[in-house]
Amino acid sequence: MSANAKITHFKTHDIRFPTSLTGDGTDAMNTDCDYSSAYISLYTDSPDKSLVGHGMTFTIGRGNDIVCAAIAEVANRLVGKNLEELFSDMGKTWDYLLADSQLRWIGPEKGVIHIATGAVDNALWDLFAKSRKKPLWKLIVDMSPEELVRSTAFRYITDAITPEEALEMLKAKQAGKAGREAKVREVGYPAYVTSAGWLGYDDEKIARLTREAVHAGFNHFKMKVGADIENDLRRGRLIRSIIDDPAEQRRPAPDPASIIGKNAGPTGAVLMIDANQVWDVPQAIEYVKGLESIKPWFIEEPTAPDDILGHAAVRRALAPYGIGVATGEHAHNRMVFKQLLQAEAIDVCQIDSCRLAGVSEVLSVLLMAAKFGVPVCPHAGGVGLCEYVIHLSLIDYIAVSGTMERNVLEFVDHLHEHFLHPCSINSQGRYNVPNKSEEGYSIEMYEESIAAYEWPGGSYWQKRAAEGK
Amino acid sequence: MSANAKITHFKTHDIRFPTSLTGDGTDAMNTDCDYSSAYISLYTDSPDKSLVGHGMTFTIGRGNDIVCAAIAEVANRLVGKNLEELFSDMGKTWDYLLADSQLRWIGPEKGVIHIATGAVDNALWDLFAKSRKKPLWKLIVDMSPEELVRSTAFRYITDAITPEEALEMLKAKQAGKAGREAKVREVGYPAYVTSAGWLGYDDEKIARLTREAVHAGFNHFKMKVGADIENDLRRGRLIRSIIDDPAEQRRPAPDPASIIGKNAGPTGAVLMIDANQVWDVPQAIEYVKGLESIKPWFIEEPTAPDDILGHAAVRRALAPYGIGVATGEHAHNRMVFKQLLQAEAIDVCQIDSCRLAGVSEVLSVLLMAAKFGVPVCPHAGGVGLCEYVIHLSLIDYIAVSGTMERNVLEFVDHLHEHFLHPCSINSQGRYNVPNKSEEGYSIEMYEESIAAYEWPGGSYWQKRAAEGK
Repeated sequence: MSANAKITHFKTHDIRFPTSLTGDGTDAMNTDCDYSSAYISLYTDSPDKSLVGHGMTFTIGRGNDIVCAAIAEVANRLVGKNLEELFSDMGKTWDYLLADSQLRWIGPEKGVIHIATGAVDNALWDLFAKSRKKPLWKLIVDMSPEELVRSTAFRYITDAITPEEALEMLKAKQAGKAGREAKVREVGYPAYVTSAGWLGYDDEKIARLTREAVHAGFNHFKMKVGADIENDLRRGRLIRSIIDDPAEQRRPAPDPASIIGKNAGPTGAVLMIDANQVWDVPQAIEYVKGLESIKPWFIEEPTAPDDILGHAAVRRALAPYGIGVATGEHAHNRMVFKQLLQAEAIDVCQIDSCRLAGVSEVLSVLLMAAKFGVPVCPHAGGVGLCEYVIHLSLIDYIAVSGTMERNVLEFVDHLHEHFLHPCSINSQGRYNVPNKSEEGYSIEMYEESIAAYEWPGGSYWQKRAAEGK
Repeated sequence: MSANAKITHFKTHDIRFPTSLTGDGTDAMNTDCDYSSAYISLYTDSPDKSLVGHGMTFTIGRGNDIVCAAIAEVANRLVGKNLEELFSDMGKTWDYLLADSQLRWIGPEKGVIHIATGAVDNALWDLFAKSRKKPLWKLIVDMSPEELVRSTAFRYITDAITPEEALEMLKAKQAGKAGREAKVREVGYPAYVTSAGWLGYDDEKIARLTREAVHAGFNHFKMKVGADIENDLRRGRLIRSIIDDPAEQRRPAPDPASIIGKNAGPTGAVLMIDANQVWDVPQAIEYVKGLESIKPWFIEEPTAPDDILGHAAVRRALAPYGIGVATGEHAHNRMVFKQLLQAEAIDVCQIDSCRLAGVSEVLSVLLMAAKFGVPVCPHAGGVGLCEYVIHLSLIDYIAVSGTMERNVLEFVDHLHEHFLHPCSINSQGRYNVPNKSEEGYSIEMYEESIAAYEWPGGSYWQKRAAEGK
């Protein structure tokens, strides 16, 4: 590409998939979801016509148009900007994206404007990686510690981590990077499945999907809880009866070092539970104590995502029962993660590639989690999230934390067919590493998918409308 | 009105005032603001044609259209609903407004969707008060403790206050309500001014406006800080030289009981400083120590509004210097206030009538602040905020906390001329009580103002466009 290439214009797309028809994605809070993508493409005047950056954030339906409108406001700030200047200091570029004080007011750094900023920042990182002909994860792990620190958002977190500390941490990890990269390319990145655990599924479907997941090599399984404790216990025992059964296993027993403290059963299988914010703090504590018998590793999102002190209280109360606390998919910015870590509120840090404002803010959280010694297990599922997060976990493992087996990355087998470079799982139930040919951040959708599912004018939705639905 | 009256439809208006032309509202974070209102009118089929509910949230310009789009999504939920059913349990109605799980995802309970919900909830309370032919404050202070508790949002805060505790607190305040109402009608509600302290003003203007404020009877003054410490010290000394000068006073010295702990000068005058979130935590502590000589009562918004633990750290560090911490205008929901109180992070609780999701969530915070013994000094200024908050402070004083002199309510003399029932200040620099003829929540704008300042089609903006600006 030319050193003078600029961003010339952008397009947004409001893309919605009719997942509410199948019960996929149902939990105690979210009873009908139409998985949606607020999608942006950044166009350039590069001589290489294929140099287009794609990004998105994820929603579950209504309001996706509002997010697209916010994306357009943020993306306007990039039109006419020189690519190499933007790429030369991605932390400064991130600060610039957030620096419109009028738009800041309707956040600040939260909700619609923040997830919209995430879509734009993600698209810019996609463009950056494509311009270097590398997958996003590889672009970042190949950075010097100095460049990685420069690419990170530090405002408001320097009481927890300074750029100087981050630099020292990254330098200490330099020597092992090549070895870790080779290892993860060989074995893949550990994953867990949520596909079997949705509230909307009946027992037969849960058993079938759980068995399929065990046979596919998974040994971490998550189920949704919180609507009814007897139902939760029944479903939990059903899942446990399958994942704990040595006869069902098609893989070697896992390394015990990777399952310490995870409430693993006799096969090394681990069960996690997720309440999606349905409880107040005292309720959360009482309810989850009642689920002790199914031995969950952690309770995810026991209460409001803003309630740092509440999560800390739940964690203290459940520690004697061997149940940890995880949260983060709705933690809206790096300041919330900073406090979750400072308050010792979480055992597991669940970043979201689309809730945080893009890669630069994700780097802040990866660095803080590494400093505080808390494993990062990103949130995925939805649409596009699995494609994104494998990149983030690879960055975490290779360049930042240096650990992988204590971490697991969510996998849900939905909607991957719409992406040019879908994520994939190997025969051991682990994510494959996006390879050299997959330049960028793996989020580009097929034009046919956009044409079908764009709301409300796409061919799918027009057909539904014509049928009177 | 008829018992069968329903909400038939609504209209939204994106109204923007060109305040960036004058430097009004400039601070260290917000360098150009076009004070804006995302405004909604709820129409009914009541035989009384004038029964229309008006509500708004406040922004500073770009993005106001995005908020209006979100308001429409939330208001859609009310169309066709019976008014008396909505009014019979305003807490349940509030839960219903927030219960669209798809819209919840793009918050949850924060940012664009939450302030939009605030505009709608405010409009509904306006309608409720008008249907009872009372000002909003009077509607609420006349409620039984049971009805007030029923009208309050309790989800996610029961670890700090339960409905039962709230009921006991309100019952204990019942006996004194009539006396407090009579007293505040007579003397007015205490206020402070920010008008002189904007960063964009030169020293001559600061001195003139400060003198005018002293002569108008005010004795609490706020100035913006954070761009340059020498400049802040010079402006602080200038303001102090006027407000501490006995010769400038036109009012009796205040009751010493009302100024205890406020770093008051020889005339009882109090200075507050406001940084509008410009610092990281360590910076905030060092910078504010450097302003000790101008004796501020508190530093407002020293860092990110989400940083509860950061505010607590700043408060601990500044306590030896006699400087308190205030925050809340950007605290995005009751869970943030809950934690600010639990963590002992604030000396003063600054609710915002438009950042919280309307009256029901404001009641949650008033009850928690009263329980924790922290005075509530609402944020105002902007456009419409002063009109709103006098109602909220009256509810706090008469029905909830029972105290007034330790609290002060922000007053900024901007843009009141656009409202049918503008707030007003008496000769002692105190807010007048909205009287019986001012039914509702005082936020209805003149049709002429809407026609002139609606963006981008209003006559003012069309004229600007025609002039090529």
